[in-house]
Amino acid sequence: MDELDVLLSVIENPTRRRILEALVREPHYPLQLSRELGLSQQGIMKHLRMLEELDMVRSFTEESDQGGPSRRRYFPTTGFTIVVDIGPGLFNTEVAVRPFDDEPQTTASHEDGRRIKDLRAELGRIDRELDELKERRSRLIHEKEGLLEMAGRMVDSAFHDYQGRKVVYEYILHPEMEPRDLARGLGLRDDTVEGILRQLEGENDRRE
Amino acid sequence: MDELDVLLSVIENPTRRRILEALVREPHYPLQLSRELGLSQQGIMKHLRMLEELDMVRSFTEESDQGGPSRRRYFPTTGFTIVVDIGPGLFNTEVAVRPFDDEPQTTASHEDGRRIKDLRAELGRIDRELDELKERRSRLIHEKEGLLEMAGRMVDSAFHDYQGRKVVYEYILHPEMEPRDLARGLGLRDDTVEGILRQLEGENDRRE
Repeated sequence: MDELDVLLSVIENPTRRRILEALVREPHYPLQLSRELGLSQQGIMKHLRMLEELDMVRSFTEESDQGGPSRRRYFPTTGFTIVVDIGPGLFNTEVAVRPFDDEPQTTASHEDGRRIKDLRAELGRIDRELDELKERRSRLIHEKEGLLEMAGRMVDSAFHDYQGRKVVYEYILHPEMEPRDLARGLGLRDDTVEGILRQLEGENDRRE
Repeated sequence: MDELDVLLSVIENPTRRRILEALVREPHYPLQLSRELGLSQQGIMKHLRMLEELDMVRSFTEESDQGGPSRRRYFPTTGFTIVVDIGPGLFNTEVAVRPFDDEPQTTASHEDGRRIKDLRAELGRIDRELDELKERRSRLIHEKEGLLEMAGRMVDSAFHDYQGRKVVYEYILHPEMEPRDLARGLGLRDDTVEGILRQLEGENDRRE
């Protein structure tokens, strides 16, 4: 399984998403999660064990300050961003994994005297910038889908065999790729791909 | 199940991702998918039926042009973007669903005489802009995580009860929210939340 498979199988489960949502805020012990999520401790433990096996959470033992039994607190160790776009002509997946910083305390001196109000205002600014990027990205994706649809129709009318259409589609989709890389990526012979691309050039010339 | 749950359960499966990747390119019939993915037609049909039930693909019957039996070709009907970010203090999910355009042929006149080469160049430009946005987004997310971690430590030192920490965390995370909305979102009484936020103001004043 690749990284995307693993991460999607983790977050596909709504309970695991809620566990991770709680853990990024602060380390939790199973009883806390069980109360927060309204689930049995056994159910919670099943998910925590899976997350631990995948190296996505770790735990430490904490002595109780009220003389009770010690308990294990769980915290996340792996952060990530996943993006999936599906649309006309478009299939895009992105995954970036970031280990949590092991020593988050290093900037502690920085924050003395900093007020919650200021932090809140700064976060508001970041959120506005993120919204703006999201808007711009969504416009670009829409534009890309339009071009890919157009390409699809051009290819469809010029190539009557499945493999030819597939090669040309990949060629259009990866503007940085050489015919040789394309052949390798699709598991085809160099001259097969070159022949198809020559045919494509011929089509284009005929159109002009 | 909400939209995000449904879409994640669809794309969590690598075979379904590969089916969708093929279908966005052009409508496929099951035998084509079976060859492309190296899977049995029964296996392919199981996934296509699930996708059809979720209104993510539809099919039409095509008469064979070689006098063979007619066959069903499947095409996708629902496009979407999913974003998930998990990091220190950060849990973010976004989902945007876009139905595929029913009449993609409307811009057909536009593309006459347009060359594949030009389309490829335009797609290259869009990809570079998308990469730039991705870079900027990743820097903002990193900055946000830093602020949230800082907030977490401040809250941790000021509040010794779980609920207090949770309220303050949500308060910081949603700069646009009034205490009243916060209380509603967390299922707490207005005066509980107001009391916690007053205590927070007191902490801040003491720090200055």
